[in-house]
Amino acid sequence: MSEKRTEISEIGEFGLIDRLHQKIKIQHESSLKGIGDDAAVIDAGDHVKVVTTDLLLEGVHFDLSYAPLPHVGFKAVAVNVSDVAAMNAIAKQITVSIAITNRFSVEAVEALYAGINAACEHFGVDLVGGDTTSSRSGLVISVTAIGEAQKEQLSYRSGAKENDIICVTGDLGGAFVGLQVLEREKQVFLANPNMQPELEKYQIVTARQLRPDARMDIVHELREIGVVPTSMMDISDGLASELFHICKASGVGVTIYEDKLPIDKQTFDTAVELNMDPITCVLNGGEDYELIFTISQEDYKKLEKHPDIHFIGYVNKEADGKHLVTKSGTAVALKAQGWKHF
Amino acid sequence: MSEKRTEISEIGEFGLIDRLHQKIKIQHESSLKGIGDDAAVIDAGDHVKVVTTDLLLEGVHFDLSYAPLPHVGFKAVAVNVSDVAAMNAIAKQITVSIAITNRFSVEAVEALYAGINAACEHFGVDLVGGDTTSSRSGLVISVTAIGEAQKEQLSYRSGAKENDIICVTGDLGGAFVGLQVLEREKQVFLANPNMQPELEKYQIVTARQLRPDARMDIVHELREIGVVPTSMMDISDGLASELFHICKASGVGVTIYEDKLPIDKQTFDTAVELNMDPITCVLNGGEDYELIFTISQEDYKKLEKHPDIHFIGYVNKEADGKHLVTKSGTAVALKAQGWKHF
Repeated sequence: MSEKRTEISEIGEFGLIDRLHQKIKIQHESSLKGIGDDAAVIDAGDHVKVVTTDLLLEGVHFDLSYAPLPHVGFKAVAVNVSDVAAMNAIAKQITVSIAITNRFSVEAVEALYAGINAACEHFGVDLVGGDTTSSRSGLVISVTAIGEAQKEQLSYRSGAKENDIICVTGDLGGAFVGLQVLEREKQVFLANPNMQPELEKYQIVTARQLRPDARMDIVHELREIGVVPTSMMDISDGLASELFHICKASGVGVTIYEDKLPIDKQTFDTAVELNMDPITCVLNGGEDYELIFTISQEDYKKLEKHPDIHFIGYVNKEADGKHLVTKSGTAVALKAQGWKHF
Repeated sequence: MSEKRTEISEIGEFGLIDRLHQKIKIQHESSLKGIGDDAAVIDAGDHVKVVTTDLLLEGVHFDLSYAPLPHVGFKAVAVNVSDVAAMNAIAKQITVSIAITNRFSVEAVEALYAGINAACEHFGVDLVGGDTTSSRSGLVISVTAIGEAQKEQLSYRSGAKENDIICVTGDLGGAFVGLQVLEREKQVFLANPNMQPELEKYQIVTARQLRPDARMDIVHELREIGVVPTSMMDISDGLASELFHICKASGVGVTIYEDKLPIDKQTFDTAVELNMDPITCVLNGGEDYELIFTISQEDYKKLEKHPDIHFIGYVNKEADGKHLVTKSGTAVALKAQGWKHF
């Protein structure tokens, strides 16, 4: 270790990543896109491959006291498929590596893989490789997903242009609210193990947290309709945080409208019950794994009647900033809190 | 968890992998080869991509009390490049995910990446993606490597044929002997922290353990010479264990000769000093990351003068079994102990 010691918390996760990536050199022409988007892009002759990877640790990314193992397996695949979708590519293959302690039985590992296999079937991906090893403390899962696209079909973070329309799929904030419910019930259970968790009325939000879908369906639909988003990301860290990434990569600003933000009734009601502002949950709650993308004005007609795509605002000049227009018509500066793992 | 509880130790790592893989279905034509070789093979139009991944945990795969962080980073890349080499493919891209505790400073993470970047330069691969997250207990590194080959250039485990010649690169047993030296010096240090470790005379073997090379050079040379091995693996679990995998996948037996097994003088001397049988270290010591491959008799002339390729035996019928012919001329049954992570 060197003499100087800088804590990671001083520069943050994104600061650390920036610092590490300054020293990386790309030498192969086939490495079309390196670090800096939802997935890397590799030339494959008549098409391109996209590659993305996520590392998930027990106690950091999932809590086995309330997350059933099949759900953990499903989610580990879904979050990677979601990153492939975020490039407007079709996920085809995954590798799955796991590290387990001797607390896990063969049956427990099979339960985990039941979820992994269910996700493979649901998303149409093949499990083609991986690694199995032992851990001294808890379950570790590493998934790499590989997808395909034509080069001109890819959507990067960097392509948003002034006057583009900002779209989001599904509804937002549910996964975050679901996490709060699960954490609350866990505390109740720890305080009194005879108490049964009350989860029936929170099924939608807890499912959003425990077993999220990835919007591969939207990628297929966009191809059928003939729309290539000018930019796209998946919403893993929170809507505001992802908008900041698109603005930075594209050199643009954005204006979004509070009354256009999609929120499910159960998410709204549960947020209120938990004394949280529903709009804050929508803007900054992570792990919804919906897609945020921008389209050119001329593509609007093709999507306007889609039941699961919502038009939440538009792209403006970088100098005009990033704003949220509240229901009362006031424009306030958008803030990205995102999820901090450090 | 289900009612029945089977311990993983009852069925072993390979038993667990077999059991999990029975339930996996492959649906895409582009998934040319799934689990069961050193890497998966994915169609890429005019060529194929190979994909391999390894998950490395502090305290299981490396010990930071004697492994410097740059070496850990280098090795994490090397072991994956080695799996690409084992397919007779050229590594082109890698992704690296890390999980770290707050015990790691920014400078420590930079030291790790200095080794990763050095390996990228050494092996000619581009670091194109990854994930950075926090860990509650120790460093976790997950690397995925992607390589390229023409379909007809690939060497699988399953292609060995009767009368083929068995080749190994470099020398064997060094990494295992190096590990024993490092563990011994660690115990000495723990017993008396004022003792300085004596590592000068063990530089070759400790380097084999801490900073192994991957034989991407051999893959390039085989292409230049125009030899495609009939089967190939890298030696990560030990020579005997890898031979068993080739025999099983190819439906063959093997005969190897003790006096043909390559061992470095320092490996030999250190094994003797540590009261270990040098040949057992060569046969069952893991982590050398040399290549073992089989060639047809007609290709022998092209390789016979290669200074770093050794011809250790030949492939025979499955019914004739797997044998080691000792220096005294006695044929003994070959046993695979391999490395057990569980």
